This record gives sequence, C-alpha cells and structure tokens, in this order.
Amino acid sequence: MKNVDLNFKHEINGKNLVIAIAQDYKTLEVLMVAYMNKEALQKTFDTGKVHYWSTSRNKIWLKGESSGNFQIVKDIYVDCDEDAILLKVKQIGGACHEGYFSCFFRTMSEKDENGFNLVKKVVKKRVFDPEKVYEEKK
Amino acid sequence: MKNVDLNFKHEINGKNLVIAIAQDYKTLEVLMVAYMNKEALQKTFDTGKVHYWSTSRNKIWLKGESSGNFQIVKDIYVDCDEDAILLKVKQIGGACHEGYFSCFFRTMSEKDENGFNLVKKVVKKRVFDPEKVYEEKK
Repeated sequence: MKNVDLNFKHEINGKNLVIAIAQDYKTLEVLMVAYMNKEALQKTFDTGKVHYWSTSRNKIWLKGESSGNFQIVKDIYVDCDEDAILLKVKQIGGACHEGYFSCFFRTMSEKDENGFNLVKKVVKKRVFDPEKVYEEKK
Repeated sequence: MKNVDLNFKHEINGKNLVIAIAQDYKTLEVLMVAYMNKEALQKTFDTGKVHYWSTSRNKIWLKGESSGNFQIVKDIYVDCDEDAILLKVKQIGGACHEGYFSCFFRTMSEKDENGFNLVKKVVKKRVFDPEKVYEEKK
C-alpha cells in the first residue's frame, strides 16, 4: 500500500477527505467531482481505476461498479495546498448516472444586458440510456 | 438578488456550500476548486467576477481581491445533483497564490511496470512572481 500523504482536510460525516475532480484526458471536459478518503485514493493508485468515497452511502465507491462506466487513470495532479486532486481519466461510456458524458450537462447562466440570468438548460446530448445501463447490471 | 436554487449540501464549519470548480474557458485547464455559499454565488452572478466562500477565513472571498488576479465569468455549468458548479472563466494573471496559472501544477503519479508511484513533481511554469504580486497590493 502506497503512502498517500495529502491534506485530507474536508471533514464530512466524520470522514477526512480530499476533493477529487475527474477530467477527460483528451477532450479536457470536466466530468464530475466527488471526494476521496485515503483508502479510496490508495485503491485508485493500486488498480488504476478511480475509487471515490461516497458521502451519501458512507463507503468506498468504485466508479463504474454498477454501470461498467469505469474511469481509467491516466494522470493525477495535486493542488497547491494538497486538499484536492485532479484526475485525468479515460471515461468508459459516460460519467453521469443520468446518461451524459459529463455530470455538468446543464448551464445555469444566460447573459443579457441586465447581467446573468439563472436558467438551467441542458446543453449536452445523452451518450447512453441510463435505464438500460443500470437495468442490465441489476 | 437572483434566486440561486442549488443543493448547498456540503456542510463545513456549519456553513452550507456547493463545490465550485474554475476552468479556463479557452484552454480548458482546470484552475482551482473551492466552495461557494449562496451569497458568494449571488455575488458571482451579480458582478461577473468569481466569489468563493473561504472555509479557512470564514468569509466571502472575491478571487483576485488582493492579487488583482480576478476570474471573469464566461459561463456556469451545474452538475446532475446540483451540489457542484463548473465555472468557465477568463483568468487574469494566474489562479494560484504560488504564481502558477493553475493550482494543479504538480503531478503525483508516475507509472511504471509496478503501477503508479507517488512522486510529487512540478510540471508547470510560474506565470507571475507571487512575492511581487502580493507585495504590491499590501
């Protein structure tokens, strides 16, 4: 087990976490953001597949474990204060459980002469049918 | 004041926050990640300059207020469960207080036949001298 000496300073439900951003290594599209505890980071290093800490389920979460949409690690960057990492990944299928390549599939800003307006609008196309993908794995 | 109806579910020091990622709108480089409370998001919309919630200083933080390195909002994306946003910005100067364009200026992975090794290594060049920039503004 490798030593992963980061600043796990984000305390959520009593767990010490770093923020982990996943970015497609080719298109540079930001795919999602979640947390990792030390064990999730170690498993990510050891397997080359991204593991997060699920703050809702309170457990390690291998991204793709139910959908098959794994994230294959290409590179990992760490930020200045070492409480966040940036994962460059090859995204199998799509990252979002709603069927999109990225979880950031909606904009919430439209600018006009009065400044920004808050209008949530889908601006991406689905890359898979979530009902089918999650159905198949049941 | 516009209504910013998101899922401010990340509770840190008693504050309810969303995660906010800043990405250069042209190069798509991920610049930094921080948090926003509702007021920071509203100020971001109202001014077109990114405001975060500083969890260390417990206050609203206009990015660039001491360095002049503002982040000008070009677009804002929201993720599927609405607890994280992605800001496409024009970064003045550099995002990182250590003088780099992005806070993610180091990799922490080197891959060999044994898998990933944890070696933190600077892979970017400084774009400004932090001593000068923060000196001038004192």
